[in-house]
Amino acid sequence: MNRRIRVFAPATVANLGPGFDVLGLALSRPGDELEAELSDQPGVEIVEVTGDGGALSRDPQKNVVGRAAADVLQRAHASHGVRLWLHKQMPLASGLGSSGASSAAAAVAVNELLGQPLSQAEVVLSAMEGERAASGTPHADNVAPSVMGGIVLVRSYDPFETIALPVPENLHIAVVHPHCKVSTAEARRLVKGRNYGLDAIVPNLGSIAALVAALYRSDLPLLGRSIDDRLIEPLRATLIPGFGKVKTAALDAGALGCSIAGSGPSVFAFAADDGGAQRIGAAMQRAFKDAAHLDSDLFTGKVSTEGARVV
Amino acid sequence: MNRRIRVFAPATVANLGPGFDVLGLALSRPGDELEAELSDQPGVEIVEVTGDGGALSRDPQKNVVGRAAADVLQRAHASHGVRLWLHKQMPLASGLGSSGASSAAAAVAVNELLGQPLSQAEVVLSAMEGERAASGTPHADNVAPSVMGGIVLVRSYDPFETIALPVPENLHIAVVHPHCKVSTAEARRLVKGRNYGLDAIVPNLGSIAALVAALYRSDLPLLGRSIDDRLIEPLRATLIPGFGKVKTAALDAGALGCSIAGSGPSVFAFAADDGGAQRIGAAMQRAFKDAAHLDSDLFTGKVSTEGARVV
Repeated sequence: MNRRIRVFAPATVANLGPGFDVLGLALSRPGDELEAELSDQPGVEIVEVTGDGGALSRDPQKNVVGRAAADVLQRAHASHGVRLWLHKQMPLASGLGSSGASSAAAAVAVNELLGQPLSQAEVVLSAMEGERAASGTPHADNVAPSVMGGIVLVRSYDPFETIALPVPENLHIAVVHPHCKVSTAEARRLVKGRNYGLDAIVPNLGSIAALVAALYRSDLPLLGRSIDDRLIEPLRATLIPGFGKVKTAALDAGALGCSIAGSGPSVFAFAADDGGAQRIGAAMQRAFKDAAHLDSDLFTGKVSTEGARVV
Repeated sequence: MNRRIRVFAPATVANLGPGFDVLGLALSRPGDELEAELSDQPGVEIVEVTGDGGALSRDPQKNVVGRAAADVLQRAHASHGVRLWLHKQMPLASGLGSSGASSAAAAVAVNELLGQPLSQAEVVLSAMEGERAASGTPHADNVAPSVMGGIVLVRSYDPFETIALPVPENLHIAVVHPHCKVSTAEARRLVKGRNYGLDAIVPNLGSIAALVAALYRSDLPLLGRSIDDRLIEPLRATLIPGFGKVKTAALDAGALGCSIAGSGPSVFAFAADDGGAQRIGAAMQRAFKDAAHLDSDLFTGKVSTEGARVV
């Protein structure tokens, strides 16, 4: 009963380009770690949370890992409970799927401890229950790639179906996290209840379809041209100081495409090699500094084809 | 100067499933034919129109073939004019891209007579000028597959870019054209100026992305599930008597997916073999008869991988 495991779950870029709520990818880093062990006490106990600066609750009803873990226990009709230690290793409210990575780690860890009674799709659904606790709406474009790895399309929420898309060999990403906060809930309020005309919808339909074609063709220039979002980016860009100049700097530095990561404030750009990602990332950091006096962190790397896993 | 050529251009299913204005495919039949020859007189002369029951103008300014042909002459800086004979071989205002097929035939024929000065993309743009004359708005999801063949995505209108998508080997189509009329202009009025919430947009983004993935994977069941349009079908279904029962009949008969062809009133369904397409088509015809007392024509076949061509 006392086997304790440690799970790593990757950060993610969701709302990928034109794919609001349906398209996300897993980053190779950063990510969250979570330790878990079975307990004779039913239910979920959060023993410790580190790395959050005291921001997160240890009440399992109010922390995403508690909700995700409880959902796995319930789906698996488990007689045990679990004890969890959450180690936040990535910024909160960054747009990089912090709550999604924690939720994914918890769902994967508890399923692992129970002997994997749930399918991967069920694990994603349990992780979504964590997201529901964080943002009020159960979206899957963070948790699905964090659980599954790679680039994941959520074809449908009802019935729930995800599709793993191909990851082009040479695709590199630069993600810049400026030191300012945009809450997911605030970013959602900005778009919720908003209505859109076909003049904005049709370009997004064309772009997301082209983005999928680009992944199957390993056509990076086409992938870059497909990072074109007329629905959400124009609204959320207003929440990110300096966004316009940062995007211009990325494209001027050779980025294939550039947009907001998740609900922001992080901004991602695609490149065709590691040197390009480094150069583009540095240009974006300078632009955040020059345009908005913001310090920032830079992450570069490839899409992680591995999802949440025991380490 | 007196070489006369004859061009066939296939009918098309545009607004394919979730792909309003961006996705269309070419049918193996029906289609339109057009004869053309160069003339020493500048401009376009429409010598004859057959098969239209007198519905179409011979004024080259008011007939789509005149507009498309004139656009090719202009793009090519041609010193000649052309004489055209249009032979309509498919129903008008059927949803099967009648004006698009005529436009495509004219653009391809004139480009051929001039020695192919234009690229295929330019020919599509000229054919779009015909569509502009017919519907008031220049959309490409009929003319692009009619010119190019296959299944075509319009990634972007500005700049204009099309992507030829893979055609699964076993994909069969049944198209039923009921004997009632829906004008493209009327069908456009119904959706124009309409606003949509994210609850309708997000499922369409997921569906069109999944549809493209299904084509690359030759996954016909996924292709069928992706024929799910929350934006346009619910509105335009009201213009087609019996649509709901026809769709149910198609799915009950084993259709992979079913929706409105173009702006209707034709309805298409996907099947995995010819026998299935025949059976599904017959079920749809019975449903039109039973639910709305409508006679209909049935076309079955595969996607035509050939576009408009000299015959």
